[in-house]
Amino acid sequence: MLSTSLPASLVHAPLAISYADVEAAAQRLSGAAHRTPVLTSRTANALSGAEIFFKCENFQRMGAFKFRGAWNALASLTPAQQKAGVIAYSSGNHGQGMALAAQLFKAPAVVVMPADAPPLKIEATRAYGAEVVLFNRFTESREAIGEQIARERGMSLIPPFNHPDVMAGAGTAALELIQEVRSLDALLVCVGGGGLISGCAVVAQALLPHCKVYGVEPLTGNDAQQSLAKGEIVRIQVPQTLADGAQTQALGSLTFPIIQRLVSQMFTVTDQELLRTFDFFMQRMKMVVEPTGCLAAAAALSPDQPWAGQRVGVIVSGGNADVQALMQLPR
Amino acid sequence: MLSTSLPASLVHAPLAISYADVEAAAQRLSGAAHRTPVLTSRTANALSGAEIFFKCENFQRMGAFKFRGAWNALASLTPAQQKAGVIAYSSGNHGQGMALAAQLFKAPAVVVMPADAPPLKIEATRAYGAEVVLFNRFTESREAIGEQIARERGMSLIPPFNHPDVMAGAGTAALELIQEVRSLDALLVCVGGGGLISGCAVVAQALLPHCKVYGVEPLTGNDAQQSLAKGEIVRIQVPQTLADGAQTQALGSLTFPIIQRLVSQMFTVTDQELLRTFDFFMQRMKMVVEPTGCLAAAAALSPDQPWAGQRVGVIVSGGNADVQALMQLPR
Repeated sequence: MLSTSLPASLVHAPLAISYADVEAAAQRLSGAAHRTPVLTSRTANALSGAEIFFKCENFQRMGAFKFRGAWNALASLTPAQQKAGVIAYSSGNHGQGMALAAQLFKAPAVVVMPADAPPLKIEATRAYGAEVVLFNRFTESREAIGEQIARERGMSLIPPFNHPDVMAGAGTAALELIQEVRSLDALLVCVGGGGLISGCAVVAQALLPHCKVYGVEPLTGNDAQQSLAKGEIVRIQVPQTLADGAQTQALGSLTFPIIQRLVSQMFTVTDQELLRTFDFFMQRMKMVVEPTGCLAAAAALSPDQPWAGQRVGVIVSGGNADVQALMQLPR
Repeated sequence: MLSTSLPASLVHAPLAISYADVEAAAQRLSGAAHRTPVLTSRTANALSGAEIFFKCENFQRMGAFKFRGAWNALASLTPAQQKAGVIAYSSGNHGQGMALAAQLFKAPAVVVMPADAPPLKIEATRAYGAEVVLFNRFTESREAIGEQIARERGMSLIPPFNHPDVMAGAGTAALELIQEVRSLDALLVCVGGGGLISGCAVVAQALLPHCKVYGVEPLTGNDAQQSLAKGEIVRIQVPQTLADGAQTQALGSLTFPIIQRLVSQMFTVTDQELLRTFDFFMQRMKMVVEPTGCLAAAAALSPDQPWAGQRVGVIVSGGNADVQALMQLPR
């Protein structure tokens, strides 16, 4: 009888979240989050040569999947922690999600936002009752500002992606998609800090082990692609891209190991491809999708991809777009 | 034993369609039309003081509920009639619906359209493979043109609303809505020629006899309101309104009796209310709704209406809007 041990490279530390965590998040979210529709388009199928199922998180509460993680994180705090309140640093939607979740839990919320975030998102965050603290994304560290305020006010800091409750909450989008369409050969998910794709990949692996999970980043912000190639987290300059929700500089310590283990490949798309996809959604599918939400679809809709002829899930992550500004950009 | 006879005013001729016709249409449409999602919005509920369920026919194939009636009419023709082809006169969406349905049945199609219809709709109709014949809406009769071409080419003329198959097909939108949300106290439907509201009212009466059905027209084109008041079909001048799908001049001989019997009341909204509702859908619900599709919602979202505190269905009839033009109009 042979006695063998696995080579060190195949011995994995446990991942930050499990499928059971996503299931628990789905329980907490039931009745609080929208169960968003899955839409199809024969035009999209013709363009891609695949059968595409769009999970429309642009129709989620406050307009993006981020509400899922925010609610799950808040619901997982103790009553005393909820009473002390939460603080979030966010390029937009996570801040709005935390603000809305805190409002619903009657908890105070501080949101640290880049001063150049879309005005629509800053206004909306304030409208949800949160205190907004602005910072300069190119010279200041939002993490440092967030941690300082959390310390001073005794608040719980909920980071935008590198947190098990946030990742598990985000994964419920894929859980609902798979519950509805049953089988998928591929799942395409946009990648900023990797919270959404981490949660979704854990679900896909548990329910559809043969389904490949692909990440999609802005071409100018392909840190996840670089990180996978190098085998460690690569940190980049703040990328200039229309996809303001994917302007993160690096994956998280909790998201990277999941991506490394469960994601097959990273794709990149240009701003022009994002604009074409934005137009496609507006004109053909009659819906508003923000540029970050166009990332996965932009990859899906290009021809001659590995998923040709397959059943493909696409997470449409959000709809908080400045439509007027986007329509005026040159095509 | 008393022998009584009903007064003449209460003896009703049979209506043009029955609930069974809508059920049969739903069978024909299964797998051909999208089962469109029903969306909710807490903001909409707060604005209206009601619980609103939006049946989103802007996500229907070719962008409007009209595909339902078009498909049902084509599917009800004999193979020989299908081969000879169909002709439609339409302010836009019915023409596109007929063109797409004909394309799918491999049948020739002619669409007679007003020369001032939205260019997007004319182009889309041609893109579905139909021959487009343009006419002057203010000086020529589309009915006469349509009948002449039908005679000359042996085609079946499918009118946009005054046809049992078209009305029954349209009613499947309400059927799906009621199947999904179960109970409703009120149902709001836009009114042009009355095809959609006829089909929907027949379904509501059969499934939810206590549900009130309300029609909504442009203020400048309130011929249905006038017709109900007068007790006969009133014909008006072509109305100037953003709701180009409701620019019809009169209800039909088949739709008016159903509206008279089953619709509780007609409401009117202004172009400014349509624009505010268009903005609401874009900004808050992240979807593109054409002005005609905003009619029912515009009424629903106004405060102090009879449906305050109730469960209200709203048919969002279509999404084929010229977004750029609408965004530039003064608010």
